[in-house]
Amino acid sequence: MIKRYSIKKIEQIWDENNKLNVWLDVEKKVTFAWMKLNVISEEEYLLINNNAKINIERMLEIEKETRHDVVAFTRAISETLGAEKKWIHLGLTSTDVVDTAQNKLIQESNNIVLTSLENLQTSLKEKAVLYKNTLTMGRSHGIYGEPTSLGLKFLLWFDEIKRQIERFSLARKQIEVAKISGSMGNYANLEFEIEEIVANEMGLGIDNISTQVTQRDRHAFLISVFANIASTLEKIATEIRLFQRSEVQEWHEGFKPNQKGSSSMPHKKNPISSENITGLSRYLRSFTNTAFENNVLWHERDISHSSNERIIFSDIFNVLVYTIDRLKDTLDDLVIDENKMLEHINSQFNVFYSQPILNYLLINCDESREEIYDFIQKCTFETMNNKIDFKESLIKNSIEKYINDISFLDDIFNINYFIRNIEKIYNRTLNE
Amino acid sequence: MIKRYSIKKIEQIWDENNKLNVWLDVEKKVTFAWMKLNVISEEEYLLINNNAKINIERMLEIEKETRHDVVAFTRAISETLGAEKKWIHLGLTSTDVVDTAQNKLIQESNNIVLTSLENLQTSLKEKAVLYKNTLTMGRSHGIYGEPTSLGLKFLLWFDEIKRQIERFSLARKQIEVAKISGSMGNYANLEFEIEEIVANEMGLGIDNISTQVTQRDRHAFLISVFANIASTLEKIATEIRLFQRSEVQEWHEGFKPNQKGSSSMPHKKNPISSENITGLSRYLRSFTNTAFENNVLWHERDISHSSNERIIFSDIFNVLVYTIDRLKDTLDDLVIDENKMLEHINSQFNVFYSQPILNYLLINCDESREEIYDFIQKCTFETMNNKIDFKESLIKNSIEKYINDISFLDDIFNINYFIRNIEKIYNRTLNE
Ligand SMILES: Nc1ncnc2c1ncn2[C@@H]1O[C@H](COP(=O)(O)O)[C@@H](O)[C@H]1O
Ligand SMILES: Nc1ncnc2c1ncn2[C@@H]1O[C@H](COP(=O)(O)O)[C@@H](O)[C@H]1O
Repeated sequence: MIKRYSIKKIEQIWDENNKLNVWLDVEKKVTFAWMKLNVISEEEYLLINNNAKINIERMLEIEKETRHDVVAFTRAISETLGAEKKWIHLGLTSTDVVDTAQNKLIQESNNIVLTSLENLQTSLKEKAVLYKNTLTMGRSHGIYGEPTSLGLKFLLWFDEIKRQIERFSLARKQIEVAKISGSMGNYANLEFEIEEIVANEMGLGIDNISTQVTQRDRHAFLISVFANIASTLEKIATEIRLFQRSEVQEWHEGFKPNQKGSSSMPHKKNPISSENITGLSRYLRSFTNTAFENNVLWHERDISHSSNERIIFSDIFNVLVYTIDRLKDTLDDLVIDENKMLEHINSQFNVFYSQPILNYLLINCDESREEIYDFIQKCTFETMNNKIDFKESLIKNSIEKYINDISFLDDIFNINYFIRNIEKIYNRTLNE
Repeated sequence: MIKRYSIKKIEQIWDENNKLNVWLDVEKKVTFAWMKLNVISEEEYLLINNNAKINIERMLEIEKETRHDVVAFTRAISETLGAEKKWIHLGLTSTDVVDTAQNKLIQESNNIVLTSLENLQTSLKEKAVLYKNTLTMGRSHGIYGEPTSLGLKFLLWFDEIKRQIERFSLARKQIEVAKISGSMGNYANLEFEIEEIVANEMGLGIDNISTQVTQRDRHAFLISVFANIASTLEKIATEIRLFQRSEVQEWHEGFKPNQKGSSSMPHKKNPISSENITGLSRYLRSFTNTAFENNVLWHERDISHSSNERIIFSDIFNVLVYTIDRLKDTLDDLVIDENKMLEHINSQFNVFYSQPILNYLLINCDESREEIYDFIQKCTFETMNNKIDFKESLIKNSIEKYINDISFLDDIFNINYFIRNIEKIYNRTLNE
């Protein structure tokens, strides 16, 4: 990944040297298993475990000749060993090493993703709690609806991330596995038990049935979950962008003292983080199809997935963590203008009480829904056209023709009406 | 969906009339809940429950005027009722009805998908068991590797479908929910308890936090799981296509007595079902991006997802069930030529014992891996070039220089060597 969007810990995991060291670790764990099965001696195992090293330059030199990266790898390791080198790679096929190691790198990267998701959740929850009783204008189709709790927006996203984590957990369980089943996936040149020993040693699950490779539906699933997460990130970023527009100005991304909003227009404060997140979310989703197509391998394996996997895992993990973390920071620095939100609510002459009035009249008078609906609609239009308060308009148009005692209007025209059930939503979502 | 790929039961579910009846059912269940909460009387509820009907022509007539399908719907229903019609849609927003009903239709369709997946699994398991000890040539990169169990291929796919069902189950849990939370998702004009009553009555879970709509990450997840399933279907279809090619001829799709293979070439028997499945799998995957983009809605909702959802659910469910069922039938009718498989195995002069010999020598003599590997490679090339048996070539090239007693060769040159661990794989995969 380009430096701008790189995450150091992810880069370290997918670094070529680190990858080869995890390959080496798999080879060592397999010799450990052969020792457990009494095929090689403890001394030989210890010699391998203590001395085997990988020299990347030497490996590249050998690869030029063998045109096979794993063969070059085992030969380069062998050069660092004595006679015990013969046990390196015993019974293995290249992908036993490559896929198991890759799943290990994925596991380590997944740990970082999980931390980022949990941090994002924490920020969302904090804001949800902070703004539980803060009113904002709710919108459908980008048009004012009714006032609602500002905190609810954050609680909604908190809960969505919870669903994403559920998906992610299943994807992890299915991909964080060791595959040590040999060339045709039938353990013919291995002992069946080796896989489980290696899996336990490496903190991985077991790929219970494989060919020469771990089946790529597992990888595709993980990547499609990441694409789904990206859609959530973009949804939140879009909310920020909508609210920061000049005509709205309810939310602003934090603006650092020396920040510059535009190279030519000094007055600008733009939602650049949210725009960045939006663009990277699209990028993250772009890998889905490649991942699905990778599952369609021929027979016991072909290697058509290999080339793109060398690129995409590192890229996805870098950009995913970068994007989640940037969204978290953006939310933490978010400036919310409560006065502006109130101003928008107050600009509506209380027409948004139309639905509560509708329901009250339905329940408490004998008129038909259509009659009442049309009466209220007329009053709301009059309210907006004449810029008078909605209550006034209701009275002017003789709401008492439906109901004698109109003191109920005072009860309904109370802004807290719109958040009367908020507590229950919070309890259900936070305590589940 | 075009008639050719339609599934009758799926068409019935997504039929406009049926959809409107499920809308009506939601409306009725909400009045049931209001009755439970003592807002409307039992008599009124019963009148609604017994008499409310939807006339689609009348609704379309009203929609021309209101330009709002749900308003047209409630008005058309109201015309079939007396004074109790006022309770229809009390406190609801359109999407309470539309999303809850759509999730119900999705649930019913999911039941059919599950049956199809389970039927496919059954066929795969049957073949896995039937061919457990049948030998086939294993291939990597399309090139002969070692003989292996034919049944293992089917067991691998059986297990992959099991993983797909796990994903599908989570997706179902997350999308088969009722959403009765009102215009802004805050239950302001409803009672919080109504949702749970409706959910229970309809056999759905609860959308624990929503806006005006159920969040579309749930839909996107389901659709991405379907795309993943499609990749598995295509993988199996590709295996059939590879095996039916003229030069291979190990597998053939069943050919019915009066079937015609080509309009111009009477001799042809083509893998047309597998090609059909391949094409439809690509089609199924094509919805993924639309589904992810649908999650990025504005504020408490915009309606940009609505237009495409009217098309894609019906299309996906039809084609998915069609494709799974067709693959199952294709597998059931599959003709497997065991002689041809043996012929291919026998064409290799036993070179595929190269790895067992390598491992045996590694374990039982003191030479280095490189020395032994190069010796064996030389013998295999000689074998193939001179068309002599691999064992003969090993003896001719003095394998006894590594080991005195070469009687072990008779033990290794036993084809069952390659399936010696099959039983363990089957036990683990079938009994988990
Ligand atoms: N059966 C195999 N399993 C794993 N790796 C292989 C196999 N056959 C060849 N390779 C090597 O895997 C690497 C694939 O490179 P790439 O296509 O760039 O990912 C090359 O070095 C191949 O020589
Ligand atoms: N807030 C709303 N919730 C649900 N449906 C709506 C809403 N506003 C308008 N509609 C109607 O939903 C339908 C959307 O049509 P389409 O875009 O073809 O899916 C139209 O009939 C709209 O009038």
